[in-house]
Amino acid sequence: MTPIAEAVRAQHTLDPENWDELRTLGHRMLDDMFEHLETLRGQPAWQPVPAEVRQALDEPLPRGSQPVESVYQEFVTNIVPYTSGNRHPRAWGWVRGNGTPLAMLAEMLAAGINSHCGGGNQSPTLVEEQVLEWLREIMGMPQGTSGLLTSGGTMANLIGLAVARHAKAGFDIRKDGLQGVSARLTVYCSAETHMWAQKSMELLGLGSRSLRRIAVDAESRIDIAGLRKQIAQDKVAGLHPIAVIGNAGTVNTGSVDDLIALRQLCDEAALWLHVDGAFGALLKLSPKYRHLVRGAELADSLAFDLHKWMYLPFEVGCVLVRDAEMHRAAFATPASYLEGAERGMLAGGMTFSDRGIELTRGFKALKVWMSLKAHGVDAYTALIEQNMEQAAHLADRVDKHAELESLSRRQMNIVCFRYRPGAPMSDEELNRLNREIVLRLQESGEFVVSGTVLDGKYAIRVANTNHRSRLEDFDALAEAVIARGQRLLL
Amino acid sequence: MTPIAEAVRAQHTLDPENWDELRTLGHRMLDDMFEHLETLRGQPAWQPVPAEVRQALDEPLPRGSQPVESVYQEFVTNIVPYTSGNRHPRAWGWVRGNGTPLAMLAEMLAAGINSHCGGGNQSPTLVEEQVLEWLREIMGMPQGTSGLLTSGGTMANLIGLAVARHAKAGFDIRKDGLQGVSARLTVYCSAETHMWAQKSMELLGLGSRSLRRIAVDAESRIDIAGLRKQIAQDKVAGLHPIAVIGNAGTVNTGSVDDLIALRQLCDEAALWLHVDGAFGALLKLSPKYRHLVRGAELADSLAFDLHKWMYLPFEVGCVLVRDAEMHRAAFATPASYLEGAERGMLAGGMTFSDRGIELTRGFKALKVWMSLKAHGVDAYTALIEQNMEQAAHLADRVDKHAELESLSRRQMNIVCFRYRPGAPMSDEELNRLNREIVLRLQESGEFVVSGTVLDGKYAIRVANTNHRSRLEDFDALAEAVIARGQRLLL
Repeated sequence: MTPIAEAVRAQHTLDPENWDELRTLGHRMLDDMFEHLETLRGQPAWQPVPAEVRQALDEPLPRGSQPVESVYQEFVTNIVPYTSGNRHPRAWGWVRGNGTPLAMLAEMLAAGINSHCGGGNQSPTLVEEQVLEWLREIMGMPQGTSGLLTSGGTMANLIGLAVARHAKAGFDIRKDGLQGVSARLTVYCSAETHMWAQKSMELLGLGSRSLRRIAVDAESRIDIAGLRKQIAQDKVAGLHPIAVIGNAGTVNTGSVDDLIALRQLCDEAALWLHVDGAFGALLKLSPKYRHLVRGAELADSLAFDLHKWMYLPFEVGCVLVRDAEMHRAAFATPASYLEGAERGMLAGGMTFSDRGIELTRGFKALKVWMSLKAHGVDAYTALIEQNMEQAAHLADRVDKHAELESLSRRQMNIVCFRYRPGAPMSDEELNRLNREIVLRLQESGEFVVSGTVLDGKYAIRVANTNHRSRLEDFDALAEAVIARGQRLLL
Repeated sequence: MTPIAEAVRAQHTLDPENWDELRTLGHRMLDDMFEHLETLRGQPAWQPVPAEVRQALDEPLPRGSQPVESVYQEFVTNIVPYTSGNRHPRAWGWVRGNGTPLAMLAEMLAAGINSHCGGGNQSPTLVEEQVLEWLREIMGMPQGTSGLLTSGGTMANLIGLAVARHAKAGFDIRKDGLQGVSARLTVYCSAETHMWAQKSMELLGLGSRSLRRIAVDAESRIDIAGLRKQIAQDKVAGLHPIAVIGNAGTVNTGSVDDLIALRQLCDEAALWLHVDGAFGALLKLSPKYRHLVRGAELADSLAFDLHKWMYLPFEVGCVLVRDAEMHRAAFATPASYLEGAERGMLAGGMTFSDRGIELTRGFKALKVWMSLKAHGVDAYTALIEQNMEQAAHLADRVDKHAELESLSRRQMNIVCFRYRPGAPMSDEELNRLNREIVLRLQESGEFVVSGTVLDGKYAIRVANTNHRSRLEDFDALAEAVIARGQRLLL
């Protein structure tokens, strides 16, 4: 044995010394988690973090080891009760999914086998391709469409826009970049578009001022005539329009742009149509509601989340790109240490790394695959329709109750309303009152709802992508808003 | 009950109808996974995907539900045996970690509570801040340094470079972008820098031709004099140097640039120093080896992976940014539906979303937090030192064996060598031979090693970030390479 060998005779590892102990703890964790999920309804939806928990979570760097049991106990005591609450049956704040027990198990399995999912010759590659193929079919995009699972909507949208930039620049943008470009590459979207668009324009070096935010109509949809006019003006002014972003479900109100008109306009002007269908695109699953997002399938690139309206745990989104070769051309990068081979582990290449930014990727596809197979697509259809009908039911309650006021026409699963008592109050007073109602509802642990400002009016915002909610939860919300409002006015 | 209410009386959910059934299956999964991990050593490290498995993983969209048990059985049969193999004790292909049983459990818990980790008033926010603080301390960066957990090294590096671009542009790059810039923003790195740099330059709109790849010395470190000269020339030519990328552990050979000299040069020229320490930066943990990455702590931004040399399952990397305000300024974006509040769920703001690209983020911090606490930092130190010494042992074997030839001086945990029999052979013949050896080793399931090309010579590449390897595994590798080589020559 060499001297070096002497030094490493200890044979350290992070595998447990005693497998049975960790196994036993693992089973306890699983039991606890199942019990937690099964009894969610009786728990607070959200609670502020108490001072003592803040203190407990502020510790010096742990040099030595601690018993795993006690670390787990800290998790149970200090973390579980004080989270973002979106898994709760009465959580409709923002557009966040709940997660499912089955997908929780899938995440455990994925972390157990810990596959590197950049591509290569392995089953996880086939599983991801399979999932992408299913999602393509659900979305109604043509065979041969390319795709990628991402961390979520922002990354999916960013990738779509990056492919658009590559396809429409008219020069070798990967090599030359945007520096020195005289005719500014310009992108168009509605004023209601999610902030990912601004962030992506900034990141891509296009600059937020190259993002033209077009006014919306009364239903928060992009004004097509205004868009057409702006593009024409910009061309005359020497700009270089490259892409239009269409919304299939805006974040504030769930509006859907006229995607068929956008497709036509993009064809005429040789522009890329990217559709942000973060949650809305999943309506494609429903024969009853898919007309609401008609035209999404005409996109050159389509982004959507699976951790929203497909109820999966974070993180997983998807981008589909009609022109597979263009998708690859925008990202594929060779490297000597990833030298291609017809055999061996790299056979097939780094397919997924070649379609996006990351080289190393986890096995996000497993939870999608297991869930789609075990629940079946029809279950998602039923749930999405249920969410729509629950939202309709809430909107109906709002309309019928004298002290509740709708602040947007419900188009999808989002209801924006406010408490408005009989006594006359200014918008400013109503804003303050409703903001306080939202905070009190959160703090009480009864409901997770969010707020947004529409036309200067503060709205209580209910975005229903919850597979655990029941109809009576929405009745209870309406009653709670009124009760809280009345109490605050006393 | 309204007519809508009638329609949703069914009260669908993705929670199981029968919790006990899923709970029982979950426990079986956990037992299987534990057994799988405990018996890894006896399993093949990797196997090609057989045709029948390929076929089985190609199915029509599942409309109806399937028994969860049978979906799981497909996972066991068709996926587990055919993955990227990096969790195996004899896996040293590329730089990939193994994952740990504890972190597998942490991922299950994180998916169970499914927290939205953009920020906000919740324990997961505190846990991520805590983890970032520990990592900052480990890296020796000053208090007040900002940070973010990312999907991995590419994203961490991309974020670092995006902050550099923002800090050094000299104009409002978020608003104006790069279009029309006359003095090209230019970034410098060594020729050995990982492909993330090119990909990021492209994505950021800087263009790969604004990435100046400087030649390296005999030890694959950036030539400082050459760099200085190029920067001076570029300034004269009207370019606008903004940043230098330093390597703390190149992917091919584990070289470390002279980071102290780079810091000095960057100070003189008012440039941003970004350090890519994807795996190398973790040497900071070792009193014995941290001198190898000295100067990494002087970076303006420092990127590294935790799913490599911290042995965690995918995905988790980290970027640290010295100037916290600049980090935020490069990314923070307000949105009405995320309206800040002093109370309620959004209190504290979307801290993490404001430091990167994604708005929605999963609870990656939990596995880091649980692992650092339960194992203790000292365990990581011991393991990293063990990996170093195992690599030294292998290099020693290579040096001593007449039929093995070292192809790079070992500086870290990476050993590049080839089989070279006594009989005279051209480099071309040796390349073919060694490429075949790597493929045969992979296909046999004995070892996961990768190959790379150094100076036109094909090298067998062993990158040891494995907490499961024992010394004898490296002896076995050396013997297997020789045996395979001899057999191929017969």
